[in-house]
Amino acid sequence: MGKPLDYELINENVKKTAYAVRGELYLRASELQKEGKKIIFTNVGNPHALGQKPLTFPRQVVALCQAPFLLDDPNVGLLFPADAIARAKHYLALTSGGLGAYSDSRGIPGVRKEVAEFIERRDGYPTDPELIFLTDGASKGVMQMLNALIRNENDGILVPVPQYPLYSAAITLYGGSLVPYYLEEEANWGLDFNTIRQSIASARELLQFCFMENLALLADEVYQQNVYQDERPFVSARKVLFDMGPPLSKEVQLISFHTVSKGYWGECGQRGGYFEMTNLPPKTVDEIYKVASIALSPNVPGQIFMGLMVNPLKPGDISYLNTVNWFFHFLLYSKTILESLRKRAHIMTDGFNSCRNVVCNFTEGAMYSFPQIRLPARAIEAAKIAGKAPDVFYCLKLLEDTGISTVPGSGFGQKDGVFHLRTTILPAEEDMPAIMESFKKFNDSFMEQYEDYRGYSRM
Amino acid sequence: MGKPLDYELINENVKKTAYAVRGELYLRASELQKEGKKIIFTNVGNPHALGQKPLTFPRQVVALCQAPFLLDDPNVGLLFPADAIARAKHYLALTSGGLGAYSDSRGIPGVRKEVAEFIERRDGYPTDPELIFLTDGASKGVMQMLNALIRNENDGILVPVPQYPLYSAAITLYGGSLVPYYLEEEANWGLDFNTIRQSIASARELLQFCFMENLALLADEVYQQNVYQDERPFVSARKVLFDMGPPLSKEVQLISFHTVSKGYWGECGQRGGYFEMTNLPPKTVDEIYKVASIALSPNVPGQIFMGLMVNPLKPGDISYLNTVNWFFHFLLYSKTILESLRKRAHIMTDGFNSCRNVVCNFTEGAMYSFPQIRLPARAIEAAKIAGKAPDVFYCLKLLEDTGISTVPGSGFGQKDGVFHLRTTILPAEEDMPAIMESFKKFNDSFMEQYEDYRGYSRM
Repeated sequence: MGKPLDYELINENVKKTAYAVRGELYLRASELQKEGKKIIFTNVGNPHALGQKPLTFPRQVVALCQAPFLLDDPNVGLLFPADAIARAKHYLALTSGGLGAYSDSRGIPGVRKEVAEFIERRDGYPTDPELIFLTDGASKGVMQMLNALIRNENDGILVPVPQYPLYSAAITLYGGSLVPYYLEEEANWGLDFNTIRQSIASARELLQFCFMENLALLADEVYQQNVYQDERPFVSARKVLFDMGPPLSKEVQLISFHTVSKGYWGECGQRGGYFEMTNLPPKTVDEIYKVASIALSPNVPGQIFMGLMVNPLKPGDISYLNTVNWFFHFLLYSKTILESLRKRAHIMTDGFNSCRNVVCNFTEGAMYSFPQIRLPARAIEAAKIAGKAPDVFYCLKLLEDTGISTVPGSGFGQKDGVFHLRTTILPAEEDMPAIMESFKKFNDSFMEQYEDYRGYSRM
Repeated sequence: MGKPLDYELINENVKKTAYAVRGELYLRASELQKEGKKIIFTNVGNPHALGQKPLTFPRQVVALCQAPFLLDDPNVGLLFPADAIARAKHYLALTSGGLGAYSDSRGIPGVRKEVAEFIERRDGYPTDPELIFLTDGASKGVMQMLNALIRNENDGILVPVPQYPLYSAAITLYGGSLVPYYLEEEANWGLDFNTIRQSIASARELLQFCFMENLALLADEVYQQNVYQDERPFVSARKVLFDMGPPLSKEVQLISFHTVSKGYWGECGQRGGYFEMTNLPPKTVDEIYKVASIALSPNVPGQIFMGLMVNPLKPGDISYLNTVNWFFHFLLYSKTILESLRKRAHIMTDGFNSCRNVVCNFTEGAMYSFPQIRLPARAIEAAKIAGKAPDVFYCLKLLEDTGISTVPGSGFGQKDGVFHLRTTILPAEEDMPAIMESFKKFNDSFMEQYEDYRGYSRM
């Protein structure tokens, strides 16, 4: 008879859960790093780990909230600007007990009010702070919501593929069924629209579909700041829904997620996020609140970061044009980060497209590139012999050769016989050309090695 | 046909989950507070919310980690002592990318090493940092572990009753069965041992039972610093297990949980914790790691707090005897907090025992009091008419009358026909006499009102 925590006796859904972003490739990369190899971690969107410096102002505010005794120190003005001091006092006044006290399980009411004001400014429609819950990052919010939604394996969650593995993992963990629908790679991952109007038309179509088919929509909008083309700015699912008016605007159940981890902040380690619920019955909101209460409260410093993100510095504030140094200059540094991400998206896409048997859509938003790798038949054969999926085989060889840690496309979903890898566009701009050169050298020699004489894979 | 997030169509386990600490009483208290009534929140162990000031040194270190640019500022020494500066540099060097980068999903390796060293110092047995996972507070760790353990309603989790509602809630949420065993109130909640030897004998008995019955032991050891008597200091389950030697020390599956929220730190809002796994098969540890990865990483500032808690200031460090002010003096302030908690435990226990129809064991550890309220038959009758459980009825009246927000004993489990309430011992020491007086006034007049002439309930 086994013991309760023996592998054979633990939760089957836990075992079935696959989570590619920190899967085999990541584990191997960690091993190699321990052995002293230089690893370029492009497996997860983690900008600060790749050298991005934090914005100064929010860090000043949270540091003061952590050390409120500094506010009584006559020297505080030597290290902190007046607007950071004022903002720290503002947030401390919103807590009851500072950062060391549990907040309400939904988050600090005053911060939820700031989030509501941000949403109203963004969308042009008011919202109710009682329907906004702060979370430890967006992933935790998504997991809470999927856990509430899923009853059993007969509950299907439609997910666009390629998908972010959080969704497949959490759906398996909670015992539901993932129902995939495939995005068109040839049509730039289904985003083949030339104008913002067409983009919104497609969003409308999606909401109409949810309405007709009685579906709830979970809108993962964590990349709303990360847009690298000018034709189609971000428009929230909520705004599109409300623009459509009744009956849809009164009926479609919508939850949207946001985070401090992405955008130009990239404050991943702080774990700050929120979700906002639209058209959910109050009894369901009560249930979500109850379950959130089990873990007491999201971390309070992360809540302050969220407040600062939705209520940032404005023209006229001292720190908005702080010239002490580059990273202190809120306006310029914010713009610089986004500009640099846009440049890196170009360098990476162009780099991939210059490689043998690699084709890649331009990264129009978010932080990732998803090039298709056309593997020669002999490479697929070699992978089979090695007992690996073909894309895992390729990514492992890439890692061993170059230290570039990516995620095989199979973790995100891809059509049969088509292979990809996923990488972030986050390495420092100045390192990017060397990384792409190193990638090209590896890839082209890999292709050389495995390509058969008929050039099969280059069709 | 309903919509996916309609109450009728959400996860049944979510609906069945009860979480008393933030249940009906808490919601009513929040309402009353909104209406302007002064509420004394003793429903949850949240010391800073009731005025406990944080220890200065850890806050200084984490503030510097949040604002690493201060470390280059020539004026930093005016606001921060040298040892806080050194410690901040130490922790920043353990991260890759500072507080803004996701860590490994198990937590920062260097901090896990500090936790391992703490456990070894405490227990006298070495442990492996790879078996220690950092979490967003202990509750999150308990939930992860129960989720991994529970397959279906045939999996029973033995829980001592009265229990902390996290356990009943999470077991229901994950679809398992709670199997209660009752502690003896008459024997001081089952702790009827006069000497530490007897206490350890009982721990041995428990481990022997786990071994014989093939049970895994989840040891919630978050109150290891909070002990208010001198006869029985804290001894970890792990130490007892290892002292027993093989076969038990090699066989019993043990997970122990710890947190920065309790002890004399009380840093609840930071959400820092860890769990340590003993005798778990590596394949199970891998599964736990995989599931932890789905939400990417615990918050990094909370991890630093955990590092600071397990590796605190020592005699000789500048801040150990910092005399700038009371709260800065690490040694004195730490002792003061624990001494004061001990005093408050006495004031509260004595206060309850001075009330009509109330009997209460002394709070020997942790942060709570659990007095038995002997409700007169007519009060039970009145509760029935009001559609409330008798203890809920009593606690609601207490709240409305005095603003004291407690939790009815039914949320923790109690024998049929026996009623309790749960309160924390955390109100400020100087406020405690007035609170207990207010309680006594309410209680004695409640008893007067409902007691029948035969004095039934005073038997």
